[in-house]
Amino acid sequence: MDNKILEKLAKVVRYYILLSTTTAGSGHPTSSLSATDLMTVLMFGGFFRFDFAYPDSPANDRLIFSKGHASPLLYSLYLAAGVITPKEILTLRDFHSSLEGHPTPRFKYNEAATGSLGQGLSVGVGMALALRARISNFEFRISNFPKVYVLLGDGEMAEGSVWEAVNLASYYRLDNLVAIVDVNRLGQSRETMYGWDTDSYSSKFRSFGWDTVVIDGHDYDQITEAFKTPAFARATAGKQNSSIRQAQDKKFISQNYKGRNRPFAIIARTVKGKGVSFMENKDGWHGKPLPKDLLDKALNELGEVDLKLRGKVGKPNIQTRNPKPEILNKSKIRNPNYLIREMVATRKAYGKALERLGEGYPDIISLDAEVNNSTYSEIFRKKYPDRFFEMFIAEQNMVGAAVGLARYGYVPFVSTFAAFMTRAFDQIRMAALGEANVKFCGSHAGVSIGADGPSQMGLEDIAMFRAVHNSTVLYPFDAVSTEKLVGEMVKHKGISYMRTTRGETPVIYGNNEEFPIGGCKVHPLKTQNSELPTSRLLRQSGYEGRARLRGAGKSQNQRKKKRTVLIIAAGITLFEAFKAQQELEKEGIEATLIDCYSIKPIDEKTIKKYGMQIGRVVTVEDHWFEGGLGDAVLNIFATEPRVKIYKLAVSKMPRSGKPEELLDYEDISFTAIIKKVKEVLQ
Amino acid sequence: MDNKILEKLAKVVRYYILLSTTTAGSGHPTSSLSATDLMTVLMFGGFFRFDFAYPDSPANDRLIFSKGHASPLLYSLYLAAGVITPKEILTLRDFHSSLEGHPTPRFKYNEAATGSLGQGLSVGVGMALALRARISNFEFRISNFPKVYVLLGDGEMAEGSVWEAVNLASYYRLDNLVAIVDVNRLGQSRETMYGWDTDSYSSKFRSFGWDTVVIDGHDYDQITEAFKTPAFARATAGKQNSSIRQAQDKKFISQNYKGRNRPFAIIARTVKGKGVSFMENKDGWHGKPLPKDLLDKALNELGEVDLKLRGKVGKPNIQTRNPKPEILNKSKIRNPNYLIREMVATRKAYGKALERLGEGYPDIISLDAEVNNSTYSEIFRKKYPDRFFEMFIAEQNMVGAAVGLARYGYVPFVSTFAAFMTRAFDQIRMAALGEANVKFCGSHAGVSIGADGPSQMGLEDIAMFRAVHNSTVLYPFDAVSTEKLVGEMVKHKGISYMRTTRGETPVIYGNNEEFPIGGCKVHPLKTQNSELPTSRLLRQSGYEGRARLRGAGKSQNQRKKKRTVLIIAAGITLFEAFKAQQELEKEGIEATLIDCYSIKPIDEKTIKKYGMQIGRVVTVEDHWFEGGLGDAVLNIFATEPRVKIYKLAVSKMPRSGKPEELLDYEDISFTAIIKKVKEVLQ
Repeated sequence: MDNKILEKLAKVVRYYILLSTTTAGSGHPTSSLSATDLMTVLMFGGFFRFDFAYPDSPANDRLIFSKGHASPLLYSLYLAAGVITPKEILTLRDFHSSLEGHPTPRFKYNEAATGSLGQGLSVGVGMALALRARISNFEFRISNFPKVYVLLGDGEMAEGSVWEAVNLASYYRLDNLVAIVDVNRLGQSRETMYGWDTDSYSSKFRSFGWDTVVIDGHDYDQITEAFKTPAFARATAGKQNSSIRQAQDKKFISQNYKGRNRPFAIIARTVKGKGVSFMENKDGWHGKPLPKDLLDKALNELGEVDLKLRGKVGKPNIQTRNPKPEILNKSKIRNPNYLIREMVATRKAYGKALERLGEGYPDIISLDAEVNNSTYSEIFRKKYPDRFFEMFIAEQNMVGAAVGLARYGYVPFVSTFAAFMTRAFDQIRMAALGEANVKFCGSHAGVSIGADGPSQMGLEDIAMFRAVHNSTVLYPFDAVSTEKLVGEMVKHKGISYMRTTRGETPVIYGNNEEFPIGGCKVHPLKTQNSELPTSRLLRQSGYEGRARLRGAGKSQNQRKKKRTVLIIAAGITLFEAFKAQQELEKEGIEATLIDCYSIKPIDEKTIKKYGMQIGRVVTVEDHWFEGGLGDAVLNIFATEPRVKIYKLAVSKMPRSGKPEELLDYEDISFTAIIKKVKEVLQ
Repeated sequence: MDNKILEKLAKVVRYYILLSTTTAGSGHPTSSLSATDLMTVLMFGGFFRFDFAYPDSPANDRLIFSKGHASPLLYSLYLAAGVITPKEILTLRDFHSSLEGHPTPRFKYNEAATGSLGQGLSVGVGMALALRARISNFEFRISNFPKVYVLLGDGEMAEGSVWEAVNLASYYRLDNLVAIVDVNRLGQSRETMYGWDTDSYSSKFRSFGWDTVVIDGHDYDQITEAFKTPAFARATAGKQNSSIRQAQDKKFISQNYKGRNRPFAIIARTVKGKGVSFMENKDGWHGKPLPKDLLDKALNELGEVDLKLRGKVGKPNIQTRNPKPEILNKSKIRNPNYLIREMVATRKAYGKALERLGEGYPDIISLDAEVNNSTYSEIFRKKYPDRFFEMFIAEQNMVGAAVGLARYGYVPFVSTFAAFMTRAFDQIRMAALGEANVKFCGSHAGVSIGADGPSQMGLEDIAMFRAVHNSTVLYPFDAVSTEKLVGEMVKHKGISYMRTTRGETPVIYGNNEEFPIGGCKVHPLKTQNSELPTSRLLRQSGYEGRARLRGAGKSQNQRKKKRTVLIIAAGITLFEAFKAQQELEKEGIEATLIDCYSIKPIDEKTIKKYGMQIGRVVTVEDHWFEGGLGDAVLNIFATEPRVKIYKLAVSKMPRSGKPEELLDYEDISFTAIIKKVKEVLQ
C-alpha cells in the first residue's frame, strides 16, 4: 500500500489515541504513539490478514499486545479498520465499556488478557504451536501460513518470562511467530536498561536462535521491508503435513522447510509520544493523558486528519476454517480399571487418566516442565507423542503457552510439581482474567513427599489456586477419584487445578463411582467393613502395628456415651483419617469422614448437613494452615454458630525426613488426628 | 595446588557423594558427580577463600548451589574441607540432620535455600551488590575482592529468572560474580534444550554482556585456568571507594576499573555421573542413588581413596571484618508529622516512612521494579540514591537479590504493584524457607485502583503472603499507621508484607499512636465525633451527599432496640466502613469498627472479645473472597459457637471503571456494608 495512505491512517489512529485517553482522563497515549506506525503498516500495509466475520478462524493472523498498556493504540487500530465506532472508542475505561484500560476478553478481537508485562510472547508461542497443529495436511507456502504477531515494549524485555518464550520459540522453530519490539527507550520512571541500543536486543535474540532486523520504527519503507521478511523473503514452497509431532521433529523440519525456520524479531527504534512534539522522548509522560487544554494543541500538530478514512485489512490467504470442534467420542473412552485396595499414587492415576481420555478427546494436550516422569504426564506422552509438549524448566512460559493453545480450542493440561506452580502465579492469575480454559496438575503436594525437603513440598498451592477467580480446586485421594476428576476437568470450562500425591494410596472407590466437581464422599464408621479401608488395608500398608500399639491398653468398655466427630480431609490426610477412624472406634468414638475431593467449589450442602448434625468438625490437610481446606470449611460454617471447627494443618517449617515422621511432626498424622479428636470431645 | 592432590580430594568427595546417597536411599549422586571436579578445584585449588570461624564475614568468598539437588556434593566438599565429619554426612536426609535433601539454612555454611531451580544467580547478584557496599573505602586489587560463585545446572538455564539475573549482573557490572554452568547435558527426564552445545550458552551470556570461557569440566588445567580468569587475568590495581551509589555509576566504574568489569561465566562441559562408568552420561539415573549392591562396584571404580585426606581452604585475602551491625540511631529518627483528616495515599506514606527511617537505619535498602514513582519508593531513592537499586521489570530477580542483600545484614524493602508480587511467589516462598529477612510492599491493591482494570489490581496478595511460612501481613488504613508499621517491619525479622492503596485516605490517627504487629484498633461509634472520620471528613471527600441521599427518609426514631454489629475492615474498606457506621447510626444501629491493620498475625484476643460481645461480625475487604482478611477472622472464631461471621469481598470479575463504581459492583462499598448489616440484623 501507498505510504501516503498509511500515513493518513496513522493520523487517524493517533487522533483517537489522544482523544480517547484525554476523554477517559487516564491511559497511556505516549506508549501507544511510539508503536503507531509499526502497527498501522502491519495492519493496513497488506501484512495482517484477518476475517472479522470469523475472529476465531485459524486461518487468521493474530495480534497480541504484550504491552497491554498500549490498548488505546489497539482500539484505535480497530477503529481505523472500521470495526469500532468513534462513539465507542470514547468509552475507553468506562465501567460499561468493553474497551478496558488493559485488554481483556471483553474486547472481542483481543487474543489474551495482558497488562502484566512480559507474558504476551508466551501466549504467542502457544498460538504459533496451535496453528501448526490446526492447519494440518495443507499444501501451503510459508508466506501463506497464518502468523502470530506479538508487540512487545522494551521495558518488558527485562522480564525473564520473555526469554523463556524466546528460547522455546527457537527450540520449536516457530517461524510463524513474529515479535515486534517497540524500543521507545523510556520506561515508566526512567530510561530502560538498554535505552536505544537496538543492537543489544538484536544480538540477544540472535543468541537464542532468532532472525532479527533492526529498523527505524517510524520509517514506512523500513517497516514494510521488515514485515516482508517473514512473509516473503523466507518463503519456500513445500508440502507440509504439520502435525504437532512433526513440528517438534527437527529432522522433519529441516527436510521440509527450505528456509531457516527461525522465529523473527523486528527491533524497532521508536520515539515515545511520537507525533506530539512536546511529549516526544520526554520523561514524565508515561501513563498520562493530555490535559484537555493541551489536547487541541496536540491534535493540531497532527495536521489534517481524515476522520472518515478507514483502512482495509486483507482476508486470510488460505481458506477460512472454523476451529476444529472438540470431539467427544464416547465409545473410545475406556473406564478405569482398578482393584479395591490396589496401591496407586494419584499422580500416576493422573497420567493414566490423560492417556485414557486422550482418544475420545483429541484436543487434550499435555505440557510439562521437564518432570513428566514425576508428574506421570509421561504416560500420555508415550501414547500421544504428537500431543505432548516438553516445555523444559520454564513454568511461566508453559502457562502462557497453554493460554495460547486454549485460544484455538485445545484443552491443555499443564503439569509440574505443585511447589513450582508458584513460579507461574502471575501467569495463572492472568489466564483467569483472560477466561482461558487451562487445566493444571501439581504433583508431590505436601510434607508427605518426605526426604527431598521443603523446597519440593507444595504447601501453598491450594491457597494460591483458591485465590484465582472462578477456579476449581480438586484433591483426590485414590486412583479412581483421580481418573474421574480428570474427566470432569476436561468437561469443565475455565481454570481448574488438581493436586496429586507422591506416595501410593489405596483404591477405595469402585470404577463406576462418580465424582462431580463440587461434591464430596461421606464415609460413616459403619461402612468400615465393606469396601472401604479396613484393617486388611492398613496391614498392607504397614500401619496396623503402629496404630494398634498406640491404641493398646484402652478397653472398648470405656465408652460412656456416644461420642461423635466429623473429620474432613482430602488426599493423603484422608488416609490418616481412615486409620484414626478405626482407632477411635475402639475407644467408643464414632468418627464420620468426609473425602473433600472438591475444595473449590466445596460441597456446602453435604458438609453443612453433617457438620450441623455432629457439631464438632476436625479438618486435616497437608498444606499450610492458611488458605487451604480448613479455611474452605470455615467459610461453610461462618454463620452457623452451632458448629465448632478444629483445624489441623502444616504450621512448622518442614524438613527432610520420612513421610510418617513429617506427618507426625506437623500434627497431621493419624495419631495427631486421634489426639485432636479426644481433645475436642473432652 | 598440585593437580594430583586435587584429584585425590575429588575422590574423597565422590566417595561420600555415593556413600551418603546410598545410605539415605535417595538423592542426586549423578548431578553431584558432574560438578565434582569443578567444585574441588574451586574450593581447594587456592581460589575459594573462606574463614570457617567467621562464616558471615564479608571478607569471605561465597558459594551458592543454585542446582540445590547437588547437595551431596556441597556437603562432601565441606567434609573434604574438614568441617563435616564422615559420621555426620551419613545422616543426609535424616529427619534430625541439618544435611537436607536440598540445602536449607539448617546447614550453617549454606547461603540460601535452593531446590527450586533458577534462583541462585539472583541471590548471587544481591550478594555481589552487598559486598560492594559492605567493603567500602578499601584499597584493594580486584583479585583480592571477595567473590560470589554460583553453581548452576544446564537444565535450569531455561528458567527466565536466570536471564533476569544475568541481565542485571551485567547492568551493575558485577565483576565479583562468577557463574559456573555445569553442562552435563542430561535433565531429569531427557536431554536439555541445548545438550552439550556449550557455545550456545556462551553466546547467550555474551549477548547479555558477560565474559565467558568454555572448558572441559573434568580437565583440571582448564578448570584452574578458568578460575584464574576472574581472579587474576582481569586484575588491575585501583583505589576503590565502592559505595553502592558508585557501583551504580557507569562513569565512576569506567574511570576506576581498568578491567572490563563484566561478570564472568564458566561454561563447563561435564559428564553426568562422572567417575562411575555405568552411570556416566546415561538416562535414567537422575535423582537415583546407587542400590547397595552396586555401591561397592562404583566405589571400586574410584580406585584408592585416601579417606583421611582433607583439603585446605584459604583464608580471605583481605582483613576479616564482621558484618556491619544494624545501627539504630534513635535520635535520627524523626516522628511522622501528619494532620488529622489530611488526605494521604498510604503508598506515599510508605515512601515517606522509608525515607524517614533511612537515616537511623543505614542498612535499609530499597529495591523497585521500575515503578518507584507509583510505589513511592522514589521518596527514599531521592534522599538515599546510593541505597536504592533499580531492579527494572524483573520481579523474580528482585526478590532473589533481596535475599542476597539480606544475607549481609541489609534490610531490603522490595516494592512493586501488589498484583505483580505474584510474579515472584516461588522466590518469596523460597526466601521464607531460607529464613531471609526481606520486606515487601505491594501498592495499588484491590479494585479501588479503578480505571487500569483487573490486570493491575492486587486481589490475591493477602492470600499469597498469608500462605508464606512465618510471614507478617500488614494493611494500614492511613498515613500514620503506614509509617508506624514500616518502622515495625524494620525491627521485625523475617518475611513481612505491607499492602498499600492507590487513592488517598484521611489521616485518622495521631502521630504518637503505636501500631504493634499483631494489634488492631477499635473504633466504637461513640468516638465518631472526636478525632475520627466525621461528617466534615466525608464532606471533604465528596461522599457525604451520596451517603445522605441514601439515608434520607429514615427517621432516627425508628430505633426500637439497641442493634449492634462489629465491622472488621482494613485499608480502603475501612474508609467505607466509617461511612457506613455513620449512616447506620441514623437508623439506630450501633456499629463498632475494627481497623485490622495486622492481618497476620491477627489480634485474636481483641477481635474475639468484641466479636463475642457483639455476636455479629461483618468483614469487608478489597481482595478476592478466598484467603484474605475474612478467612483470617473466621479462624479466630472457628471454635466460638456464639459468633456469626458475614464476609464481604471481591467475587465478580472486576473491570475498568471508577473506584466507587467498582467498590459498589463488588459489594464492598459503604452501601453494600449498610445493606449487609441490615440483612444480618433482621
